Amino acid sequence: MEKLTGACIIGQSGGPTAVINASAQGVIQTALKSDCITRVLGAAHGIKGVLEDKLYDMSQEDPAELDLLKYTPSSALGSCRYKLADPDKDDTDYKRILEIFQKYNVRYFFYNGGNDSMDTCNKISKYMQKVGYECRIMGVPKTIDNDLNGTDHCPGFASAAKYIATSCAEVWQDAHVYDTGMVTVIEIMGRHAGWLAGSAALASLTGCGPDLVYLPEVDFDMDRFIADVKSIYDKTGKCMVAVSEGIHYADGRFVSEAETSATDGFGHAQLGGLAVMLADVIKKHTGAKVRGIELSLLQRCASHAASKTDVEEAWQAGSAAVEAAVAGTTDKMVAFKCTREGGYQCQTSLEPLDIVANFEKKVPREWINEAGNGVEQPFIDYVLPLIQGETDAPKEHSLPRFAHLKKVLTTDM
Amino acid sequence: MEKLTGACIIGQSGGPTAVINASAQGVIQTALKSDCITRVLGAAHGIKGVLEDKLYDMSQEDPAELDLLKYTPSSALGSCRYKLADPDKDDTDYKRILEIFQKYNVRYFFYNGGNDSMDTCNKISKYMQKVGYECRIMGVPKTIDNDLNGTDHCPGFASAAKYIATSCAEVWQDAHVYDTGMVTVIEIMGRHAGWLAGSAALASLTGCGPDLVYLPEVDFDMDRFIADVKSIYDKTGKCMVAVSEGIHYADGRFVSEAETSATDGFGHAQLGGLAVMLADVIKKHTGAKVRGIELSLLQRCASHAASKTDVEEAWQAGSAAVEAAVAGTTDKMVAFKCTREGGYQCQTSLEPLDIVANFEKKVPREWINEAGNGVEQPFIDYVLPLIQGETDAPKEHSLPRFAHLKKVLTTDM
Repeated sequence: MEKLTGACIIGQSGGPTAVINASAQGVIQTALKSDCITRVLGAAHGIKGVLEDKLYDMSQEDPAELDLLKYTPSSALGSCRYKLADPDKDDTDYKRILEIFQKYNVRYFFYNGGNDSMDTCNKISKYMQKVGYECRIMGVPKTIDNDLNGTDHCPGFASAAKYIATSCAEVWQDAHVYDTGMVTVIEIMGRHAGWLAGSAALASLTGCGPDLVYLPEVDFDMDRFIADVKSIYDKTGKCMVAVSEGIHYADGRFVSEAETSATDGFGHAQLGGLAVMLADVIKKHTGAKVRGIELSLLQRCASHAASKTDVEEAWQAGSAAVEAAVAGTTDKMVAFKCTREGGYQCQTSLEPLDIVANFEKKVPREWINEAGNGVEQPFIDYVLPLIQGETDAPKEHSLPRFAHLKKVLTTDM
Repeated sequence: MEKLTGACIIGQSGGPTAVINASAQGVIQTALKSDCITRVLGAAHGIKGVLEDKLYDMSQEDPAELDLLKYTPSSALGSCRYKLADPDKDDTDYKRILEIFQKYNVRYFFYNGGNDSMDTCNKISKYMQKVGYECRIMGVPKTIDNDLNGTDHCPGFASAAKYIATSCAEVWQDAHVYDTGMVTVIEIMGRHAGWLAGSAALASLTGCGPDLVYLPEVDFDMDRFIADVKSIYDKTGKCMVAVSEGIHYADGRFVSEAETSATDGFGHAQLGGLAVMLADVIKKHTGAKVRGIELSLLQRCASHAASKTDVEEAWQAGSAAVEAAVAGTTDKMVAFKCTREGGYQCQTSLEPLDIVANFEKKVPREWINEAGNGVEQPFIDYVLPLIQGETDAPKEHSLPRFAHLKKVLTTDM
């Protein structure tokens, strides 16, 4: 394979995670050391930064601050949710990207994100091939939702899962303190896949787990839900429920968007989220004291409770993308191949971008119990190795010390 | 002082905290070692356990599990919100408490809680004095709200404050990732005092703090709030707001309970909390994307992010109560006397129960800025030393390893 010399761009896209910056760090640090990569550029707000010629020169950053990216949540370079058009219908954006690539002699492009970002990455890759611009294009996976195809799991998922399990265990303690009845409903992210909601069940390993877990992989039935809760509440006086934000009825309507229901009597516009609404339904049917808790953004940015395994794998994914590209690979996403029997082992692999993009990997039905209100042991065995280890995130004043980047624009230099 | 020999009871009361069990541990471990204390009993659900003769024999517990109490959130013995009657009007409960004290020869009573619990403790103390039953009665402070009189601060507050500041810093990162507008409203506990909401401002030390902080010590004005947010949002495209759940209008009505408002147009029953409601108001006035986040129970049970200083002081408070009682003290609450100049120093002191009970200590007005939408440096200087240090909380499977108590009832022995 011919040695390809030129600049690289790293962009971050989609919803942030606790470890997406660890992947960016893996790309940046490996690229800065590479003989083939002449300049390392960070795109401001993902592909939008490329389109707008807003690129940061990463060599201007203090290496000590770059080191801190590993422990800094969210997308340090800025993210976007920008969908590129079908190039056969409108190639305006692609022409502009090519123009910028030519302007800076960009020969390496690393895009760090989830499903939509891999789609963006795939489209750019195919376009550059079509117009014959030599450029190695690599996807670096990221999503707390863990729904990317072609990889054992996604960086970002495990840290969110660990935060969720830890928080559920702690809330369980809190919810069991009085000798009066209490039903707690915890709402967890994951619009189409239940990986995160299912991870609440890990809390059971501490002795303090949810009684019921509802994933979007199984159609939700309000009457069965009420009966499930009542049966546990009647026996123990307590019930803790974890629900995915994406639970939906058999007809596909999200439960969170079902604003009125004659049978359940919650007939007003919902400002609060799903947890509060479900807690209200339970209150009406049991008279129990209830509490609806939405983990909200907290679950995807809690770097203070990150999984060391996740942080390290996220870095590896970024670094492996650069190494593979420099060695000649293009049009691929870095993925993980893992074995769990005889101890957890994880290795990176390379998967074609087009099999990864636009396909949401869901929790296998057989990993969910028959009643559709809990997960089975294979689910626990799958997630548990991923959340292992505590990070050495540095602190200042006993508060997180995040990376402070200078973000020097190439256009300002 | 005459040596007083007999059993002791430790009870926990009111809302739990991340470190209330550290205080219980301080009482239990110190009492188990005392020559004067013949038996250490834990009351199931506070004073209710005394009234119902539900007392655990703490000597039956595995010492290794007792050690874990330091890292176990919530009230391990169970809590209650039971208010004793005025003994001059109805002394039924007091007679029953005396009966139980006599049954087990209880000569030491330690009650761990906040304002209401110190009131309970005070009433029992005065009753025992009146009827001439020799018993040393000590309050051990606890409340995340930090509103107890007569003490520099309360165990439980600092760990909640640290969790709040850490979470705000992380959410700030998340809320600044897109180049589109975003207003985030974070709702924090504290019905009458703004110690916790003010602690959100500590996040500014990380470079990622809230732009605006509203405490219940200052009357809330919706129009001013909207103008405050708009002025920051218009300039920066972002705004992060921390609000106390207890903010209220000048006429005393809680903002969270004001269900309709013609001027602001949020005219439907609120199921969600204050954060969601305020976010909705801002959305209507700015068109910004908004996110309302309620820290809910998470903030008071997050032992995974506890302050080491808080955990150690909580243990000290419990231990000092036992030592003082054995040495002859009664009718007092353990308090903290602290100095901050020339390095933080904290010592326990003993305060009369009746000056402590039923008085809510609020944030001094001069520690809040003039506009009533932020805190001043003295507030930061007050809180910062309290959140210092990380605990060595043990983990199993990288999840918290909480204490598992056997809770052997005396009536079952």
